[in-house]
Amino acid sequence: MSTESSLIKIDIEWGHERLVRAQQTVELRPYDIESWSILLREAQSRNCNEVRSLYESLVSVFPTTARYWKIYIEQEMKARNFERVEKLFQRCLVKILNIDLWKLYLTYVKENKAGLSTHKEKLAQAYDFALEKIGMDLHSYSIWSDYIVFLKSFEPIGSFAENQQITAIRRVYQKAVLTPIIGIEVLWKEYIQFEHKINPVISEKMSLERSRDYMNARRVAKELEHITKGLNKNLPAVQPTLTKEEFKQAELWRKFINFEKSNPLRSEDTALVSRRVMFATEQCLLVMCHHPSFWIMAAQYLDSTAKHLTEKADVNAAKIFYDEVANILERAINGVMSRNTLLYFTYTDFEEGRLKYEKVHQMYNKFLAIPDIDPTLVYVQYMKFTRRAEGIKSARAIFKRAREDVRSRYHVFVAAALMEYYCSKDKDIAFRIFELGLKRFGGSPEYVMCYIDYLSHLNEDNNTRVLFERVLSSGGLTNQLSVQIWNKFLEFESNIGDLSSIVKVERRRSAVLENLKEYEGKETAQLIDRYKFLDLYPCSQAELKSVGYYEISSISSGGQKV
Amino acid sequence: MSTESSLIKIDIEWGHERLVRAQQTVELRPYDIESWSILLREAQSRNCNEVRSLYESLVSVFPTTARYWKIYIEQEMKARNFERVEKLFQRCLVKILNIDLWKLYLTYVKENKAGLSTHKEKLAQAYDFALEKIGMDLHSYSIWSDYIVFLKSFEPIGSFAENQQITAIRRVYQKAVLTPIIGIEVLWKEYIQFEHKINPVISEKMSLERSRDYMNARRVAKELEHITKGLNKNLPAVQPTLTKEEFKQAELWRKFINFEKSNPLRSEDTALVSRRVMFATEQCLLVMCHHPSFWIMAAQYLDSTAKHLTEKADVNAAKIFYDEVANILERAINGVMSRNTLLYFTYTDFEEGRLKYEKVHQMYNKFLAIPDIDPTLVYVQYMKFTRRAEGIKSARAIFKRAREDVRSRYHVFVAAALMEYYCSKDKDIAFRIFELGLKRFGGSPEYVMCYIDYLSHLNEDNNTRVLFERVLSSGGLTNQLSVQIWNKFLEFESNIGDLSSIVKVERRRSAVLENLKEYEGKETAQLIDRYKFLDLYPCSQAELKSVGYYEISSISSGGQKV
Repeated sequence: MSTESSLIKIDIEWGHERLVRAQQTVELRPYDIESWSILLREAQSRNCNEVRSLYESLVSVFPTTARYWKIYIEQEMKARNFERVEKLFQRCLVKILNIDLWKLYLTYVKENKAGLSTHKEKLAQAYDFALEKIGMDLHSYSIWSDYIVFLKSFEPIGSFAENQQITAIRRVYQKAVLTPIIGIEVLWKEYIQFEHKINPVISEKMSLERSRDYMNARRVAKELEHITKGLNKNLPAVQPTLTKEEFKQAELWRKFINFEKSNPLRSEDTALVSRRVMFATEQCLLVMCHHPSFWIMAAQYLDSTAKHLTEKADVNAAKIFYDEVANILERAINGVMSRNTLLYFTYTDFEEGRLKYEKVHQMYNKFLAIPDIDPTLVYVQYMKFTRRAEGIKSARAIFKRAREDVRSRYHVFVAAALMEYYCSKDKDIAFRIFELGLKRFGGSPEYVMCYIDYLSHLNEDNNTRVLFERVLSSGGLTNQLSVQIWNKFLEFESNIGDLSSIVKVERRRSAVLENLKEYEGKETAQLIDRYKFLDLYPCSQAELKSVGYYEISSISSGGQKV
Repeated sequence: MSTESSLIKIDIEWGHERLVRAQQTVELRPYDIESWSILLREAQSRNCNEVRSLYESLVSVFPTTARYWKIYIEQEMKARNFERVEKLFQRCLVKILNIDLWKLYLTYVKENKAGLSTHKEKLAQAYDFALEKIGMDLHSYSIWSDYIVFLKSFEPIGSFAENQQITAIRRVYQKAVLTPIIGIEVLWKEYIQFEHKINPVISEKMSLERSRDYMNARRVAKELEHITKGLNKNLPAVQPTLTKEEFKQAELWRKFINFEKSNPLRSEDTALVSRRVMFATEQCLLVMCHHPSFWIMAAQYLDSTAKHLTEKADVNAAKIFYDEVANILERAINGVMSRNTLLYFTYTDFEEGRLKYEKVHQMYNKFLAIPDIDPTLVYVQYMKFTRRAEGIKSARAIFKRAREDVRSRYHVFVAAALMEYYCSKDKDIAFRIFELGLKRFGGSPEYVMCYIDYLSHLNEDNNTRVLFERVLSSGGLTNQLSVQIWNKFLEFESNIGDLSSIVKVERRRSAVLENLKEYEGKETAQLIDRYKFLDLYPCSQAELKSVGYYEISSISSGGQKV
């Protein structure tokens, strides 16, 4: 949370306990929508200059949330701070494909540029720009319609101008009636009339030519309306809350995107299909940007499109899509996903697949350079990458870096040792790495367990026994922490020892457990471990519970549950 | 439940729907106390001959429950079926050290033998018998007191008889005032008076001599009263219900027994101490006989006492206690614990420790002869025993039996193979056993996982890969069941393969998952497995949940949770 909290710099005299508390809440939990709402309601009733720091904090925490930008801009518009308004539009508009925000923009241009001599051109440009960006939206009817009304509103002087006007209007109509938007029927009817008025004969032909595509678009509009029912495109983007509503919204987004992937327009223009898919995806990411799965879904879609194009030998187009994969992943890790290793790994594997090893190194290093992260898993994957791409020597160099990094946890030793064993088939080096790690992580039962597990599989009974004894007598482990090692020792002897060795280990384990409060009166539960095998237990479920076996086994496994 | 249900043979015309339902309930769930109570209340109002089958069923299901025997006997007594009464006492009395039941017995003897010429002797015998068995009970005051009143009630003829009477009464008093019982003060006062009346001078000396021991016993009586407060010795013995009350009662029993183990009388007579401990234990087992832990606690106590005696070189006494260990475990597995393998294993290990291998074989065979049990874990332990005691050849013979037993599950193959690997260090035989098992359990992902786990630790990449391919292409596993094998395959390649092998396995896994409803829309969750290492995950907990990772991982691990 610290990252997001640092974005919040609110410098306002609220003069009211409730508001001060709300501010403290958002400073602590930047995704507390409720508290932001309290502050927003108040801010809207105040002078814009006074509350601007609130708005700036708000759009820093929610850079993709159209609704917040809109409220901010509207207040600046009311205060007639037009320079600020335009700067705000510049900051958000292109990134946020939200229909309401774009409508606000058009309203702004329409109203505030009215006095200018270039007003007409500016507005036409704005409409073109808007339609290019957001004209695909199911709810973009009013933009199309307004544009046409605007285009029709001029009295052309001379036939050249008249022709130009007709061409312009026709161009918009023809594009609109191919696009699945709610209200497409109205546009179609208008268009037919429009053509009829110009030339009844040609109009007949044109409408015939286009009616098929129009009906196709109309069908898809209906389907889309049905599929996106309940989808809320204006929700603020927050970290996963795991609420039912959130799962429902995620599911609706998935359905929406998958619907576009299914090419409902049955178009043969693959560029159009992928533009529509990415349009849906981008809208989704505005709300779901904190959910790694949607970023990955987008990257996978672009990647599979690129592969498809490669198969069709369209190398140039494929290249563009491959670059798009990199772009979207780059955006992810530069944005709110900057600490999500899954996206880093997705990205690095993608670049590794393209043999851009330099880029992969850069990325791993970028992540490792973040000061307050746990680098362990990243080192593990980094070692695996270098082993695959450059060989074991490179991997060893990364391991060296990993063990010199104070933030690294024991896993890097385990991963490095197992890599030596499984990949370079070198038991000696693996052994030395485990020993090295033991010096630093001898107090971690998880590490010790990994070492023991490794050694016991090698079938070197004596070495394994020596390790057990060393670890248990080193004093590095508290009684509490040694329990799982004792359990493992008992399991080991149960497998290969004679009865007296088994009983001896069991006694020694009991002596340790006696000092632990959790095991008081649970002698029978301790006995279970001696006789269980895989998922077989020497008691019924109810009996296991009644002797307190479950409580103990969750302690002794270090409470680790997936 | 089937075993207990078979004990119930009720042949009564209830004539009332509610009662018929109650009977059906107990036939289905023999430990449903509520329903038994309904039937009992009705039975008590009927003719004894008519409802005897109910009582017989009741005491078959609850052979240790004094309260039920008492109700049964009381009804027979009311009906004056004295022959039956005596047979019933014969069946239950010695086994059930319950004070109320013994008081009933004494009342019966007192009242029903009054007419006989041998009445006096019979009653004295009964009292002696009772005091020997139950005179240690904290609540046995009335038996001691009644006996003394009875002994005092005779007018002795002649000084010899008088002396005899005094000796008899003194003997009882002197024993009583050393025993922690509630009411001990009254007995002490009476005793002092009794001696004073005989001889004031000697009485002074006697009371001085004994007052220390008396006060000691009085203190322990007070402590026992405190410790057993809330302990209900009349609860019916049922299988673990895991209720709060049950845990509380178990805890109270444990405290009671441990208190006796602490030798609160500070006696140097170790035989007395262990008699008192076992008295508490036996009372406990009447109620808690379905709880393996109390049987094991008893066996462990006897065993440690025997060891203690061995250390003190008292070999004969030690032998007796060792035999007692065997006795109590024998009782357990011949009683309600007849299907509890933990008690079997405790017993076999005990006899193995005494080198009574013949007995161990008998016991394993006794369990395996029960028709409707799962013999798997018992075969596994049986193999381990024979390996330890007689060597690998014997173990192989047991494995042969195990695999010829149709009831055996895959674990016997795993255990046998790992035994060959870990104990006889013979990879070839281990391999052949795994292959043999694969023919029978190729459709069990758990078995396959064990095989793969074994092979991959051997570091034989090609063999491991071949096994993966064989298993996954054999058609023996449904898609659903193959998921965890695919996950393992992916993990395997992630460790040692190059990126393209990893991606290839991942693709093939995806193709399988696509056909499984549970994985719909969870592509990201699938990716997690590729990057996780030990307990490190490339996402936060909330993110893992939001992509549905937990649901999937519980499916793909076959839903196995301890």
